[in-house]
Amino acid sequence: MPRQDLEYPKEPFSTVKRKGHRGRYELETIHQIINSCPLLHVSFAAPGSPFPAILPMIGQMGSFERPSADLGDVLDLYLHGYVSSRIVNLSRDPADANTNEKGLPVSVAATHLDGLVLALTPMHHSYNYRSAVLFGHAEVVTDTAEKLYAMELVTDSVVPGRWAATRVPPTPAEMQATSVLRVRIAAGSAKIHTGPPGDDRADRDDAALLARVWTGVVPVHATLGAPLPGPYNQLVHVPGYLADYVAESNADAEAYALEALRTVEEKPKTTADDD
Amino acid sequence: MPRQDLEYPKEPFSTVKRKGHRGRYELETIHQIINSCPLLHVSFAAPGSPFPAILPMIGQMGSFERPSADLGDVLDLYLHGYVSSRIVNLSRDPADANTNEKGLPVSVAATHLDGLVLALTPMHHSYNYRSAVLFGHAEVVTDTAEKLYAMELVTDSVVPGRWAATRVPPTPAEMQATSVLRVRIAAGSAKIHTGPPGDDRADRDDAALLARVWTGVVPVHATLGAPLPGPYNQLVHVPGYLADYVAESNADAEAYALEALRTVEEKPKTTADDD
Repeated sequence: MPRQDLEYPKEPFSTVKRKGHRGRYELETIHQIINSCPLLHVSFAAPGSPFPAILPMIGQMGSFERPSADLGDVLDLYLHGYVSSRIVNLSRDPADANTNEKGLPVSVAATHLDGLVLALTPMHHSYNYRSAVLFGHAEVVTDTAEKLYAMELVTDSVVPGRWAATRVPPTPAEMQATSVLRVRIAAGSAKIHTGPPGDDRADRDDAALLARVWTGVVPVHATLGAPLPGPYNQLVHVPGYLADYVAESNADAEAYALEALRTVEEKPKTTADDD
Repeated sequence: MPRQDLEYPKEPFSTVKRKGHRGRYELETIHQIINSCPLLHVSFAAPGSPFPAILPMIGQMGSFERPSADLGDVLDLYLHGYVSSRIVNLSRDPADANTNEKGLPVSVAATHLDGLVLALTPMHHSYNYRSAVLFGHAEVVTDTAEKLYAMELVTDSVVPGRWAATRVPPTPAEMQATSVLRVRIAAGSAKIHTGPPGDDRADRDDAALLARVWTGVVPVHATLGAPLPGPYNQLVHVPGYLADYVAESNADAEAYALEALRTVEEKPKTTADDD
């Protein structure tokens, strides 16, 4: 029996309204965008401030209960890194007074830029991109085994296999100094834009304009450069797992950007809103 | 007389607390990070939702009153792009009830990843990065001349000179379909991390560990690929302004990532918090 793709519920706060046909709700699509993004942006209400807090953090989707779960399964988001004491302290609060949910309500965004889409008119310029947002409740991880699971998950997201290649386990002082948040996901959505520019018919029929303006896509991808040893490195050669990751990551990133610009979006059958 | 560097005020919500010595408040530093970031993340309170809204948008700092202002001057942030009707509608509200300020309180983050910093222990792994956050009040731009100024500013941030190379000005229908927000900035800060890994003395003195673990930095930068023509492009050659931008952008991005990893941070004189 074919496995059903799990989807996040379409909540009023999570439903893609503008260009709704680009909205995606499958867990696998959303989790893939999050896990391949080296930096997430996390937002939460900041008590006493008129402005929400927003900060870059490192995070990964995973399941401590079932570490073999795949990307399309129900997963938690583990956040780590530049954890301000504010987000950690707020996540220790027992419950959200409004919703009776435990944990701090957070919104998490991951966005990949895949191309500059250059059209005949500024109006139809756009980016090729993959964007995901998750909404959930963050709590501080207190169980040592779960904390170690999340630290390994996040470290290996930077370079696969890196955790086991370093001095582990962390000392008790290192464990104490590190905070990990587990976000229980309530909803999420993704938006993906691909393809070449699509100008209006009137501009595409303007021979003088076509003769003057270059149209197409500049693919964009992240590049990892050659690893450069630090001041106390003693290894003459870059280890295989690291050299391989640099090569594979670059090849995959470039391939995706090129595939994205060649993938023409399916348009909804009736819409006047076609950029 | 040397010009004084302008700084944003250190408000309780904008002051860098963790690794405070990395906090930067000069307008020029912050505006530079924002203007070189192809995607910003914008957050605001979403009425009726337990979670703040967060969305990727395109934006640029500029001054409609004084277009020749430089990056270190007082500037507004113009936002454009994937403007959901929600953020535009909320920005039309006359005033924030709590602060009596006009406009929607928004927080805007821009982050560049510059390197993977690989240390002897997971604890001291980090990223080289440049991160900026601005806090301000967003209002919808209604003046046509100001809207055109902002549309050109944003289009030229994608590829310098692109606006004038396309079919402009926009038609009245195109102007109608486009929303531009002007964010009046109340405060902001930046955080910059550079340099090679810095492990604890005990690990750096462990000869067996040094013999086993590669340490250093993998530089990371965005790459613009070769421009690929779209289906109705008629120009045989990529125009000079575009080819030049691709080449310069790649050279600058790679140079920054390499410079970042060679720049050792000044550490505060007294701190136990040195990763």
